[in-house]
Amino acid sequence: LNIGAVARAMSNFGFLELRLVQPYDKAWQEARSAVGAAKVLAATQVYDTVQEAVADCSLVVGTASLGHRDLRLTVRRLEYGGRILKRHLASESAALLFGSEKFGLSNDDLSLCHWLLRIPTREEHESMNLGQAVAVCLYELVRNPKAPHAEQKRGTGLATAGELEIMERLMDELLLVSEFTHERKATSSRLKLRRFLRRMALSGQDVHVWYGMLRQFLWKMKGPNSSGSGAE
Amino acid sequence: LNIGAVARAMSNFGFLELRLVQPYDKAWQEARSAVGAAKVLAATQVYDTVQEAVADCSLVVGTASLGHRDLRLTVRRLEYGGRILKRHLASESAALLFGSEKFGLSNDDLSLCHWLLRIPTREEHESMNLGQAVAVCLYELVRNPKAPHAEQKRGTGLATAGELEIMERLMDELLLVSEFTHERKATSSRLKLRRFLRRMALSGQDVHVWYGMLRQFLWKMKGPNSSGSGAE
Repeated sequence: LNIGAVARAMSNFGFLELRLVQPYDKAWQEARSAVGAAKVLAATQVYDTVQEAVADCSLVVGTASLGHRDLRLTVRRLEYGGRILKRHLASESAALLFGSEKFGLSNDDLSLCHWLLRIPTREEHESMNLGQAVAVCLYELVRNPKAPHAEQKRGTGLATAGELEIMERLMDELLLVSEFTHERKATSSRLKLRRFLRRMALSGQDVHVWYGMLRQFLWKMKGPNSSGSGAE
Repeated sequence: LNIGAVARAMSNFGFLELRLVQPYDKAWQEARSAVGAAKVLAATQVYDTVQEAVADCSLVVGTASLGHRDLRLTVRRLEYGGRILKRHLASESAALLFGSEKFGLSNDDLSLCHWLLRIPTREEHESMNLGQAVAVCLYELVRNPKAPHAEQKRGTGLATAGELEIMERLMDELLLVSEFTHERKATSSRLKLRRFLRRMALSGQDVHVWYGMLRQFLWKMKGPNSSGSGAE
């Protein structure tokens, strides 16, 4: 189950080369059916030892837990270590080494690592699910703070001043007809209304929906037989 | 299974308030035994509708997939949206809303959202495992680029120049005794040796391990009966 979850996270984030060291046969057979990770799993290589699996990598980064704190290896938080790993990956190969969920990395495995990454989990509950730990590490590697902030803006952008002006006049009339106010608004009240409408940050599309509704209210208030503008 | 994985990721990153809307009874019963997430699961509230679940939240952020691109909701990449959410959470409550893994959020659910977050997965394989998606989003919320870069430096720091000088003299003697060289090193060769030793970036602890080994080599080469310094 974990192998499938790991392969899926890799596929999600575009890391397509999974290497397994002595997987349990059963887990490995079951993983091959993991949702959406077929490409990663078809290309997965199985090795007998960690040494062989990382032989062609010029950087080997292990994953740390509290238990590793007495080791003589540098432990870097993911935020920073991820940056170093990313820079290395731009021109060279690297291995990100995870142990089994139960036992983690052995001392033998750790002796092959240049340094360790630690995901900033709470000390009270540090041990992560393997598939989730892989997903978080790979996300940090694809993370791009310079990417466009919003992928899709709401609607077609904000209403123009002209569009808001029409809405303002409709509201003004409505407030009068509904007897919410009893005379045309004084300038200060007009300003209040204007600011009120701006605070809503209406889109150009939404403001037209408002026109329809407000005109309908006006028509209803003035009575069907009046000379109002009617529903549109 | 997913509920347990979600609760575990929440516990890892310190988000302790899980709210479920109409969970499958069976999944919910099984989740209660999830590894290490007992505290989160014990406090989990179950609701009939999403409306009730988010009623006290002043910001509701949904999670987006490609299928949502035609909605009139702002879709923000996690790197940026996470920052907005984090800022909001500093003083107010917010809900991060996930749909079921199979169906995602319904249009009804989405109508309750202020905007949507998208995890920057590959377009070719966008759909994430639910537990992994939650882990990645929560990691972004606890992520702290200003945290100390390395939590633990290797050993006790680099060897001092004095410590390296001792190693240099030992190496020099060894190269002579082993007949690797046949006379005391000329200055340029000493410089080469010095640079060679610096490139290894030896720690203060490791350099003492080297002393022991090098002295032992010397002792062996000079013969047990010579007047060498002997093993330490």
